[in-house]
Order: sequence, then structure tokens, then C-alpha cells
Amino acid sequence: MPYVNIQVTREGVTAEQKARLIKGATDLLVDVLDKNPATTFVVIEEVDLENWGVGGLPVEEYRARQLEKQS
Amino acid sequence: MPYVNIQVTREGVTAEQKARLIKGATDLLVDVLDKNPATTFVVIEEVDLENWGVGGLPVEEYRARQLEKQS
Amino acid sequence: MPYVNIQVTREGVTAEQKARLIKGATDLLVDVLDKNPATTFVVIEEVDLENWGVGGLPVEEYRARQLEKQS
Amino acid sequence: MPYVNIQVTREGVTAEQKARLIKGATDLLVDVLDKNPATTFVVIEEVDLENWGVGGLPVEEYRARQLEKQS
Amino acid sequence: MPYVNIQVTREGVTAEQKARLIKGATDLLVDVLDKNPATTFVVIEEVDLENWGVGGLPVEEYRARQLEKQS
Amino acid sequence: MPYVNIQVTREGVTAEQKARLIKGATDLLVDVLDKNPATTFVVIEEVDLENWGVGGLPVEEYRARQLEKQS
Repeated sequence: MPYVNIQVTREGVTAEQKARLIKGATDLLVDVLDKNPATTFVVIEEVDLENWGVGGLPVEEYRARQLEKQS
Repeated sequence: MPYVNIQVTREGVTAEQKARLIKGATDLLVDVLDKNPATTFVVIEEVDLENWGVGGLPVEEYRARQLEKQS
Repeated sequence: MPYVNIQVTREGVTAEQKARLIKGATDLLVDVLDKNPATTFVVIEEVDLENWGVGGLPVEEYRARQLEKQS
Repeated sequence: MPYVNIQVTREGVTAEQKARLIKGATDLLVDVLDKNPATTFVVIEEVDLENWGVGGLPVEEYRARQLEKQS
Repeated sequence: MPYVNIQVTREGVTAEQKARLIKGATDLLVDVLDKNPATTFVVIEEVDLENWGVGGLPVEEYRARQLEKQS
Repeated sequence: MPYVNIQVTREGVTAEQKARLIKGATDLLVDVLDKNPATTFVVIEEVDLENWGVGGLPVEEYRARQLEKQS
């Protein structure tokens, strides 16, 4: 009875992609730990871009600076 | 000072039901562990149906298949 | 299929108390939202005292200062 | 590679304030534990008021009663 | 920069199995959402059996009753 | 009444460092959002090295490979 929580930035993840994440995460727990899919939960949390920080910056600003460095 | 996090699918939980969940969870921590309600947090997270997976499927599809099996 | 996460300080919660927390939290979800107990998870996380802060202090220090104030 | 999750009630936290929370939390992990900002995540979760309970009540009701006590 | 949290009961998951969970979860985020592995975190949390409840019971008791039903 | 959860790898974080993380995180919420320290929780979760993955690898293996690349 695993609980898998997947947090990603809210950037247009489609229903089809969510279904693939759910299937993939469940299959992983079945394959590696022989868990029962019927009692394996997968919860996807989408986080607004301004609510996610990396490198001390909101993610959009961080990405912009990374691009500047590369250009 | 417990922290209780309740994750449920977003299926129209009313404000009144949320208040009952908050009261019930707090009372539980008071009754069992003699905790102070004033420093007991209860946070309810509602998750979109397509973001919750069980049995390797998004929950709506899982429920539909369960119904098919039973019919 | 709710997921309930209960975080408390690690202060000798007994197996019997944990069973009561599990039963109480599950019954609450059944009573208020008519959830299925068989797909309701309750996870209790015990946190070392020095890992839990309130009032800007580790909880033991916070409690000690509260007692000082009251004496 | 720390992961910091900040949960607050949804009460109009501005983008600028979120940026300050992200910077402050990251700087804290750098200062105290010498962590690498580039692999330090900060995720801010805003919770609707009716979804946050304290003192056994939804937070708005709790605050109203506190005010009544003080008046 | 996804954050994946996998909670399972503490039942002897080996280092090798943990490595497979980490690789599998990361590959899943790469395949489905084209995420960068270098900024994809996977955190495995092992929960003591008496701290995990399902069906209103601690998991070991729940499993024992399920076996009884089947015998 | 914020709840701050800080997850770091279990690598000998001292009680003194934990106290600094607790104070720093609390002060941050006071400074930025004018929150009440007495109802601000900070919970530090230390995760075993083999339970934390980045780049598709357990963190120790990831670090070893990074060092190889740099040498």
C-alpha cells in the first residue's frame, strides 16, 4: 500500500500525461516491491510557477538567468 | 502540537464537512494523546480527480472499471 | 481513498494509541465523507523533539520557557 | 539538495513576498548547512482558509472567537 | 525540477531496490514530462508497520484479518 | 499559522544547527508575512542517504560520479 506523491510545476501537464505518470509509478512499485496496485496511491500536485523556488529564485527567474548565462 | 494533513479527491466537500473533519481530527488528538487544540493544525488538501491514481489508473477510470466488473 | 498524515513529536506514543489514531481518523472519513475504509490510508510520522520547532525554538526549549513564564 | 515546503493560508501572498520566502529559505540552508542553492527546492503551498483548522475550528471561525475573547 | 515522495511500509527494502525506485521514478519524469534528471528529487520514506493504517487497523492486523477471511 | 517542512539528507545535522534552522525559518515567516511565531511550526525531516535520489541515482553515487567528472 504505497503512497507516491509527485510534485511538478503547473505547466500544462495533460490528462494523458497524468495517466502515464500514475501508471508508471504504480508499475514501478509492482515491479520493484511487488506491491498491490489496488492499494497503491499516486497523487500529482501541480505547483504554480511563482510558488516554486530553486537557486534562491522563483523558477521562471532562475530559468531566465540560466539562459542569459548560456547566451 | 500535531499537524494533520488530510488528502481527499476534489468532489464537492462542503465547508460544513470540512469543519467536521477539522473538529473530529482535533478531538481525536486530544482524546488519544491529550494534545492542546490551540496548537493542533489540520490541513485539508483537495486533489483533482485526474491527479489521483489508484490501481494504476486515474481514479475516475478505476471506478468505471470496478463498476463494469460488478455489472 | 483518503490519505491522512498525522505528524506528532516522538514522545512515546504506544502501539495501542497509534491503533486508536488509525481507527479514529478512518472512522472520521467514513462518517463525514462516506469513504471506504479499505482504501483509506493513515500514516503516523513521529518527529524527534529537536526536529520540531514552534515559537522559533526547538519544542523542548519552547516548553521550558513557557513554564518559566507561568511560574 | 534540501526540499523546503512552506504551507500558509491563502490570504493574498504576493509574488514579491513569495520571492522573499524562496530567497530567505534558500539562504538559510546555505548559511546553516552550506547547501548548494542550485539544488535547493522551496515549494510554497497556499491553503484555502476553510481548509485550515486550528483549535478544532476552521481558521476564520477560530480567529473570530479569539477576537470575541479579547473584546 | 520534480519532487517525488514515495512512502512505503518499513519491510526490508534493500539499497538495490531503493536505487531501482529512484532510477525508475526519475526515468518516468524524463519520459513523460521531459524533466531534467539533475534537478529531479526522489525521496523514499519508510514507515514503521504500526504507524501505517488501512481499513481502520494497523496494517499488520489488517493483513491478518484479510488472511482469516480468505482461509 | 504556517507549517514549514525542511527535508535534508541525514548527514550529522547538529542540534545547534537544527535550532538555527527553526529560528531562521520562523523569523522569515514573521518578517515576510507577519506571522505569529507561537503558531508557526517548523519540522525537520532527515532522510537516509540511500533514500534520497537525484539524477536518477542514490545521492552518494551521484556525488561520486560528479567528482569523477570533475577530476
